[in-house]
Amino acid sequence: MIRVGIVGASGYTGAELVRILLRHPEAELAVLTSRSYAGQQLSAVFPHLSGCTDRVLEVFDAAKMAAACDVVFTALPHGHAVPVARAVLERGKKLIDLGADFRFRDAAVYEAWYKVKHEAPELAREAVYGLPELYRDRVRGAALVANPGCYPTASLLATVPLLKAGVIDPATIIIDAKSGLSGAGRKLDLRSHYAEVNENVTAYNVGIHRHTPEIEQELTAAAGTEVRVSFTPHLVPQTRGILTTVYATLRKELTTGALLDIYREFYRDEPFIRVLPEGVLPRTKSVTGSNIVHLGAVADPRTGRAVLLAAIDNLVKGASGQAVQNMNLLFGLPETTGLDFVGLYP
Amino acid sequence: MIRVGIVGASGYTGAELVRILLRHPEAELAVLTSRSYAGQQLSAVFPHLSGCTDRVLEVFDAAKMAAACDVVFTALPHGHAVPVARAVLERGKKLIDLGADFRFRDAAVYEAWYKVKHEAPELAREAVYGLPELYRDRVRGAALVANPGCYPTASLLATVPLLKAGVIDPATIIIDAKSGLSGAGRKLDLRSHYAEVNENVTAYNVGIHRHTPEIEQELTAAAGTEVRVSFTPHLVPQTRGILTTVYATLRKELTTGALLDIYREFYRDEPFIRVLPEGVLPRTKSVTGSNIVHLGAVADPRTGRAVLLAAIDNLVKGASGQAVQNMNLLFGLPETTGLDFVGLYP
Amino acid sequence: MIRVGIVGASGYTGAELVRILLRHPEAELAVLTSRSYAGQQLSAVFPHLSGCTDRVLEVFDAAKMAAACDVVFTALPHGHAVPVARAVLERGKKLIDLGADFRFRDAAVYEAWYKVKHEAPELAREAVYGLPELYRDRVRGAALVANPGCYPTASLLATVPLLKAGVIDPATIIIDAKSGLSGAGRKLDLRSHYAEVNENVTAYNVGIHRHTPEIEQELTAAAGTEVRVSFTPHLVPQTRGILTTVYATLRKELTTGALLDIYREFYRDEPFIRVLPEGVLPRTKSVTGSNIVHLGAVADPRTGRAVLLAAIDNLVKGASGQAVQNMNLLFGLPETTGLDFVGLYP
Amino acid sequence: MIRVGIVGASGYTGAELVRILLRHPEAELAVLTSRSYAGQQLSAVFPHLSGCTDRVLEVFDAAKMAAACDVVFTALPHGHAVPVARAVLERGKKLIDLGADFRFRDAAVYEAWYKVKHEAPELAREAVYGLPELYRDRVRGAALVANPGCYPTASLLATVPLLKAGVIDPATIIIDAKSGLSGAGRKLDLRSHYAEVNENVTAYNVGIHRHTPEIEQELTAAAGTEVRVSFTPHLVPQTRGILTTVYATLRKELTTGALLDIYREFYRDEPFIRVLPEGVLPRTKSVTGSNIVHLGAVADPRTGRAVLLAAIDNLVKGASGQAVQNMNLLFGLPETTGLDFVGLYP
Repeated sequence: MIRVGIVGASGYTGAELVRILLRHPEAELAVLTSRSYAGQQLSAVFPHLSGCTDRVLEVFDAAKMAAACDVVFTALPHGHAVPVARAVLERGKKLIDLGADFRFRDAAVYEAWYKVKHEAPELAREAVYGLPELYRDRVRGAALVANPGCYPTASLLATVPLLKAGVIDPATIIIDAKSGLSGAGRKLDLRSHYAEVNENVTAYNVGIHRHTPEIEQELTAAAGTEVRVSFTPHLVPQTRGILTTVYATLRKELTTGALLDIYREFYRDEPFIRVLPEGVLPRTKSVTGSNIVHLGAVADPRTGRAVLLAAIDNLVKGASGQAVQNMNLLFGLPETTGLDFVGLYP
Repeated sequence: MIRVGIVGASGYTGAELVRILLRHPEAELAVLTSRSYAGQQLSAVFPHLSGCTDRVLEVFDAAKMAAACDVVFTALPHGHAVPVARAVLERGKKLIDLGADFRFRDAAVYEAWYKVKHEAPELAREAVYGLPELYRDRVRGAALVANPGCYPTASLLATVPLLKAGVIDPATIIIDAKSGLSGAGRKLDLRSHYAEVNENVTAYNVGIHRHTPEIEQELTAAAGTEVRVSFTPHLVPQTRGILTTVYATLRKELTTGALLDIYREFYRDEPFIRVLPEGVLPRTKSVTGSNIVHLGAVADPRTGRAVLLAAIDNLVKGASGQAVQNMNLLFGLPETTGLDFVGLYP
Repeated sequence: MIRVGIVGASGYTGAELVRILLRHPEAELAVLTSRSYAGQQLSAVFPHLSGCTDRVLEVFDAAKMAAACDVVFTALPHGHAVPVARAVLERGKKLIDLGADFRFRDAAVYEAWYKVKHEAPELAREAVYGLPELYRDRVRGAALVANPGCYPTASLLATVPLLKAGVIDPATIIIDAKSGLSGAGRKLDLRSHYAEVNENVTAYNVGIHRHTPEIEQELTAAAGTEVRVSFTPHLVPQTRGILTTVYATLRKELTTGALLDIYREFYRDEPFIRVLPEGVLPRTKSVTGSNIVHLGAVADPRTGRAVLLAAIDNLVKGASGQAVQNMNLLFGLPETTGLDFVGLYP
Repeated sequence: MIRVGIVGASGYTGAELVRILLRHPEAELAVLTSRSYAGQQLSAVFPHLSGCTDRVLEVFDAAKMAAACDVVFTALPHGHAVPVARAVLERGKKLIDLGADFRFRDAAVYEAWYKVKHEAPELAREAVYGLPELYRDRVRGAALVANPGCYPTASLLATVPLLKAGVIDPATIIIDAKSGLSGAGRKLDLRSHYAEVNENVTAYNVGIHRHTPEIEQELTAAAGTEVRVSFTPHLVPQTRGILTTVYATLRKELTTGALLDIYREFYRDEPFIRVLPEGVLPRTKSVTGSNIVHLGAVADPRTGRAVLLAAIDNLVKGASGQAVQNMNLLFGLPETTGLDFVGLYP
């Protein structure tokens, strides 16, 4: 059994890790920590876990964590994962960070967008960007995995195949994303107040969202040329789910069917990718609670553009499910182990 | 492997059976039927199942169904399960009906409330009311299980222990229930139109809802005296979940703690019942997607009444999850087989 | 023109007063105060008011407020209205308090339920409980109006007529109420976080909600005998709206039609009360944004109980609309002045 | 008083016309028709109107309608307004069509996108496109007004000023729109079923939505060169509101402030347009129930693109409110007459 530690188990991604790992046949929860709720039962913080686990949240202790665990998940605000990573890696254990601290190969990019100094650029360089559909082999041998952001996961899976196939112009990529509120976490903020969110759709951080450089890093790698994108996130009144709508100019005339064929070929053996039939479009509800990605595309001959659509559950494939997928790779397990649950519908 | 048939697989309870059984380690989907969608792939009707099953919906054929299946689930409007049941039982197979056709030991009660003649009163008499927490042993030996209604499941689990303990007055029971819209099924109706339901709470079928006699039948059995209840269902703007709030006059002064102790004792070894600590009240979100029941109680010394609260997911413990729980009992499996998934939160 | 002051204009009831009064033909907003947002434009706090008012929020100053206003609305947490009331009343101006400070004729009841000492019991005795349908004449001559709570407004309007008519047993009244989140105000709390509220229905403060003694005070007055009620508030996932479901034993057999006739007679000339036809039940969406109350009733001969239903918009008839209705009475205006807007549907 | 007829009063836009016109000081409802509900009281179809109007829905009769009304609103599926328009215009009365039948100056465009033959191309040519912010003067003298679609209203108001100012490249316009469900009308469809819509965001009619040529017609007129746009509508789980996010390449470097200044200048005296301050972005909730438009813009120097945002209530400024605004223009009334209500928040 893989002994798992979670640092930051009292947030939504932490709770989702617990949900998944409690039923993972090869993992056991060894240590769960929380700064705010240390000393309390996890089921007091999340009543849906009543009777499912009697684990108590602890104060983080690096030595204890590293000793008791084979792998540690960090679900922390950016800037906080570095000391945990150092402590865990020094002791020869593996770390999967669900935050942004190790996602950028170039620490200067991180520093420019996150407005803090990076305390461990050497770790950032060494980390593997944990999008298994792109970097499966590298993840397998990694010690430190940077789990992708929720928006990048959906955006990259929709865009990379067509960019690699050379059929879209990398200078024309626009990503309009819609997310449910759970992506904003459990902290209190007027922007998460029910009466403010309900019956409301709004854009935020236009042109300055921190997932932008993460998307650009990976699209640049895929295109082999520097890519800049317009990325606009929106909040829609629902709890889970991200839908990304990507616009790009086609380099030559292509049918919708041809676009979908590129997806099908690229993702041929992928266990979590579903390329929908022509005429069927992704919707977030179809992936609620599952690690599955729904992809769709439409070629528009009138404008010469492709419209690419991806739907994920932001807490599963966009965070904790993908993190467990990475764990499976790190430990040589079949990638779907503990992740083959079907989504909830309706 | 238990070979399973589902008659009416294109409704919400049918889809929920599929979700659960696809991951049930001892069951396999043998035949799925649908009147409206026969000939189509199930994943065309429910895109969340894309890539999870390639099963095609068929026209119902009794002989074929009985030959290919060890157990048949019927998820049909009332009045339609009788012929299926006859065909299946005649061939020595088992049937679990998710509708109302076999819930009443006295067919006259069914006829009075459902306004149709009962075509098989002898089957109704023979059927076991499939609430495992009350009738586990009888279910084990049954051929025909009448799966309880969603409202009765929540109402009975909250009320029966206190009634059996003799601490509440059976003449004073009032049940105020709140349900999400999925309980109304997938059929089209102005009352299910998003713009009519959203931002709306309403009562319906006041005093005449058909789950009333079902609740009364079981409360009468528990009390040993005829019980009549006021039962008022409400629709609240959410997809899943039922919360029942039960009011009853206490026969003697009791604390909240004493009420909860009665629950804890009654449900001591139950795998799916959670009696929440004093001061923590059930909420539907804590059981979304799981087969778990949350129970709470408050004794009010000012009024001499108990307020009893139960939360379930209407499609799981209130329908398909409970049906699988009954299947497990019928086939001698541990009751939690295939049902030990944790709910989705948030 | 009536010059109006609002103390606490940056909360939801304050904003709703502004919405109504901006279009009131006989009122003008003279002074708006806020502790948290003093110095800011109201439209910066509530962007829906952009271009509708350029008023700036001020620090509360009693002398200035009293000098500039003919009437002051206080929309404050309980315990904070007393000093404002003293300052305003001393200067001969009128005060309408939307909080609880003056709702109890017996300050001891207030102190027992609100757990604070009442600083002005003499004002509480002098205040008029501002439910115009019951106390219209007294409101007209008052200096200090205690605007009723949201739950009491709906509960009393449904119950009082039948209690006064003597047709229900006052010892059997149970009130099960469902409210949208805006009733909890704009303050931050995990219980108001979108991801916690959405897809969730829950009871809270069972047996101990502070609106209970307010309901009991008025039902006792109506019955002429001491009344105690079971009152259970629930939160449902919507922004606005309260539905109360009241259960009471009928003293004699009565039809639904007879119950509705009692309502129709009692509320014969009321401008804001709608008694729905038999078979049509109140729903909150029908009164969203309006000051109107929808009433319905069902007599259940099986149980000998009446089920009474009332729907209001908690921020309008349950708070700010009713406060303006009281203002109209205080100043001799037709009661519907500025309040005759039609609700928003859907 | 202007005598008003509404053809198709039992749909959502019809009901919204009634809501507005019941409180319009210069209009009276003369005739309301409905095919499905003729003979019924409007308040039976829409209970929120109980006690607000006792009007009965009638079968449409052209002669009677024209005789009794000064202006007729048609709220009908496309293709059905032509005979009504002929009958009304022949008799010298005015017509405002909320559908698509008269929006296209070139009937061939209509025929290509709507897949039906246009029965009155001469009326289409004569009709004025009723977007007052662009065509106020022409509306004043018109007999036949084609009320714009909901998506075009928001899209055009955000885009036209910058196109006319020549600061954006007309070949690069991409419009990503998000709408609540009320825009789909009250008809029954699985895509409007609550359990399918809730917790779901989805794109639809990608590249083929019929509002595309309407947007293009007006952008072409504004640019003076043929404009083609990518337009992708999405449904988000809310009842009211449209947010459009428009992307366009800037022809020269411009700041966000400069973009907003162009808006402010263009809409200087507009009563219903609010250009939000830099850093404040439109959200649909801020315009719920009002005829107001919120506009925002962000210039992104990294990509050289502008992101333009507009929020409207699809049933008010996107349909019935704008129709009344046009009526006010037709009859020489101040444009805000009957439309100066403040939106509902929260």
